[in-house]
Amino acid sequence: MAKFLTSREENYSQWYNDLVVKAGLAENSAVRGCMVIKPYGYAIWEKMQQQLDKMFKETGHSNAYFPLLIPKSFFSKEADHVEGFAKECAVVTHYRLKNDPNGGGVVVDPAAKLEEEYIIRPTSETIIWNTYKNWIQSYRDLPILCNQWANVMRWEMRTRMFLRTAEFLWQEGHTAHATREEAVEEAQKMIRVYAEFAEKWMAMPVIMGHKSETERFAGALDTLTIEAMMQDGKALQSGTSHFLGQNFAKAFDVQFATKEGKQEYVWATSWGVSTRLMGALIMSHSDDNGLVLPPKLAPLQVAIVPIYKSLEGLEKIRKTVSGLMDKLKAAGISVKFDDRDTQKPGWKFADYELKGVPVRLAMGERDLENGTIEVARRDTLTKETLPLEGVEQHIETLLEEIQENIYKLALERRSKLITKVDSYEEFKTLLDTKGGFFLCHWDGTPETEELIKNETKATIRCIPFDAPEEEGKCMVTGKPSHKRVLIARAY
Amino acid sequence: MAKFLTSREENYSQWYNDLVVKAGLAENSAVRGCMVIKPYGYAIWEKMQQQLDKMFKETGHSNAYFPLLIPKSFFSKEADHVEGFAKECAVVTHYRLKNDPNGGGVVVDPAAKLEEEYIIRPTSETIIWNTYKNWIQSYRDLPILCNQWANVMRWEMRTRMFLRTAEFLWQEGHTAHATREEAVEEAQKMIRVYAEFAEKWMAMPVIMGHKSETERFAGALDTLTIEAMMQDGKALQSGTSHFLGQNFAKAFDVQFATKEGKQEYVWATSWGVSTRLMGALIMSHSDDNGLVLPPKLAPLQVAIVPIYKSLEGLEKIRKTVSGLMDKLKAAGISVKFDDRDTQKPGWKFADYELKGVPVRLAMGERDLENGTIEVARRDTLTKETLPLEGVEQHIETLLEEIQENIYKLALERRSKLITKVDSYEEFKTLLDTKGGFFLCHWDGTPETEELIKNETKATIRCIPFDAPEEEGKCMVTGKPSHKRVLIARAY
Repeated sequence: MAKFLTSREENYSQWYNDLVVKAGLAENSAVRGCMVIKPYGYAIWEKMQQQLDKMFKETGHSNAYFPLLIPKSFFSKEADHVEGFAKECAVVTHYRLKNDPNGGGVVVDPAAKLEEEYIIRPTSETIIWNTYKNWIQSYRDLPILCNQWANVMRWEMRTRMFLRTAEFLWQEGHTAHATREEAVEEAQKMIRVYAEFAEKWMAMPVIMGHKSETERFAGALDTLTIEAMMQDGKALQSGTSHFLGQNFAKAFDVQFATKEGKQEYVWATSWGVSTRLMGALIMSHSDDNGLVLPPKLAPLQVAIVPIYKSLEGLEKIRKTVSGLMDKLKAAGISVKFDDRDTQKPGWKFADYELKGVPVRLAMGERDLENGTIEVARRDTLTKETLPLEGVEQHIETLLEEIQENIYKLALERRSKLITKVDSYEEFKTLLDTKGGFFLCHWDGTPETEELIKNETKATIRCIPFDAPEEEGKCMVTGKPSHKRVLIARAY
Repeated sequence: MAKFLTSREENYSQWYNDLVVKAGLAENSAVRGCMVIKPYGYAIWEKMQQQLDKMFKETGHSNAYFPLLIPKSFFSKEADHVEGFAKECAVVTHYRLKNDPNGGGVVVDPAAKLEEEYIIRPTSETIIWNTYKNWIQSYRDLPILCNQWANVMRWEMRTRMFLRTAEFLWQEGHTAHATREEAVEEAQKMIRVYAEFAEKWMAMPVIMGHKSETERFAGALDTLTIEAMMQDGKALQSGTSHFLGQNFAKAFDVQFATKEGKQEYVWATSWGVSTRLMGALIMSHSDDNGLVLPPKLAPLQVAIVPIYKSLEGLEKIRKTVSGLMDKLKAAGISVKFDDRDTQKPGWKFADYELKGVPVRLAMGERDLENGTIEVARRDTLTKETLPLEGVEQHIETLLEEIQENIYKLALERRSKLITKVDSYEEFKTLLDTKGGFFLCHWDGTPETEELIKNETKATIRCIPFDAPEEEGKCMVTGKPSHKRVLIARAY
């Protein structure tokens, strides 16, 4: 099956596209920059959604749904916000088609022009804060802790499946609080939820930190981020959580009566992760043979391939593994007995490799005689023959082991590719020769940040939470700096 | 709390709107015809989604996701389809805003006009069949059994929350088959899934049948429907399943190689239910005090209200019911101990009534002494005081009883309001005086159907599956008829 994929070494970017398409995750559509998420890809996304949704609810959030369309005038109300999103908006201007009087199918009916245009939401702060205005009168109405699972559109010019698409699926949390402290704490809490999800479920180590001012969300006072390293050493911003201060409350005039009876503006956060996580997942673990999925997010965890010469043989195998299947299912493990007669075992093996199924079992006639079964693990591509009796215990442990192992591998890879650098020349050289993440001193100015970006295409990914205080000099300007920041080229 | 709602008798339509808003289900938004689904309403929708999704998966379907936007030209490809949807389409014509040179916020950038306009999907047959074209080469690729959970837009002129909104949430199944028989069977299977969901989960009896030709989905050869009776006797179409024949396969040129090597067009179905079901649920069971929810779909099934004079008393009650709460949770029942000190018990009782929580418990100091607890059921508004010991068993049974009882009540109400009528005059009189559903003979022509609709505002809801063969005469024209059809005014 390896032959079907371009290798990572040959062309990483082509490998990614090949894999997305050939593993049946997604494909490009007839709509510019929009993808179709195919059933297998969507099944992985559903697993992610389920776990994230559970974590949101455990932290006190409820889901709600707000309109897809946003009146254009709402956008002008928060200056930074409109600046950030106006250039990539899909605009609805009419509400009817009519038959082409010249016979060319249907045309837009000029008589059905909207008085005010609508924007397809690129994010929902404006429509939501316009709604919260009616929900909030007093401190008793706070906090509001809502989340929305939705589609959004940003008219990106250069798109790549999952990583950057004109339409994407995401969740956006929008919370309202009585105090600055509470909102700051909420933004912190949610970036930690994302980090926990990334590390424990996606098996993807991340670095948490603050974005620089330039890289903040349009309208935020502080943006927190989790940054993951892909196999090619580039960074992928995997989730963000924003402290919005009182910006949106002021833009939409959302005030509340405090316990003391004063009127104050409400404090806000918003936070989101998207189908971009699918791209992060793929590029964190997969290899030249296909996907490698963490067992916790694999739609199918165990596949059993029977190797038989006659239908009688097939039935014997089916009967022999049926007890194992029951035990695995009882342990909450998803398992499939692949009795398709249209494909040969070798083809099936390669297909499960391509699809990243964590454990693949095989049973042939000799196994029947010996009371054994072949157990292959996807992450290491190794296999062993084990006694059938009690193998369910082994498989259960193996799934945990795979989950841990791929996390460990990703962490080791990352450790090797994080470099402390103090000279800008050295930085530029290593960026091209070694790649990966760099911890450098920066003078904190947007000008220096801009210069680094223009000269090297690397950006300040974040100021890590755990960066120790350390006296140093900006690697570009030599001005004083007290902390190293994380710099890398990014998706 | 009753005082907060207009009574059904006074103004049924106002009662509905009051209830939707005051129970915290939804509210109108700043976007014409679009609603905000509030957390409590969304929690009910999530319960519906979970169960439906489970039923779809059990019948072999997988979820996928297709683009929100549909190229305008796709609409012209299936003649009936465009005819049905072109008049109510939201059209995207531009992809960028810019600062107003005259200083009035942002304006549409005329330089960012799309070459071909996009339509926000009113339904996804066209974009999906354009995609299926690439997925289907041979009989081995069939069937395709996909479902999508998505938002859609239809620019309706008169909207009502949940029942008819410009944007709504739904699921749309789209399947592709090698034979007519298989597609017909699929359409049948899915309408039966909907009927089972409506009856067993929503506690809402439905009548399954075929739509008349006029009422078919735009592009379908046959539309199957489930029709429910609301408390005011009007019908509500609650779900439809369409046999699309080869119409979309021909429009998008989707052919497959049969086992025999011939090229044939693929057969299709589509089927959907939407947030309209929320309206159906509300109008099936609720009363002048508020919502009545079937326990299987209630986000909160049991609320416990402590009645206390001191914090010490509150803690005693909390401790006393903690074992009960554990037992209920262990039985999969959702339960909340309402210790809010901002509201009085009476207010809480009314609020749980308004919100339709199936079982409300209360414990006061006398109960503490006597080892009892008050158990109130929402459907009958009755209550009794029972020994705390073993009450979890009673509650579990009670929830099942409530589920059955509200179904029975809805069924009884419907039975009383289904009338067989043979004279058009009598039909017209009874429609205004008695209302409800009518079983009548109809000559099968669109002309007669149109006449009935124009003269009475009643429509042919369906030709029921279980309508027996019966010789009769069309109540309007006197022409022969072999089956009674279901006629009613509808939402």
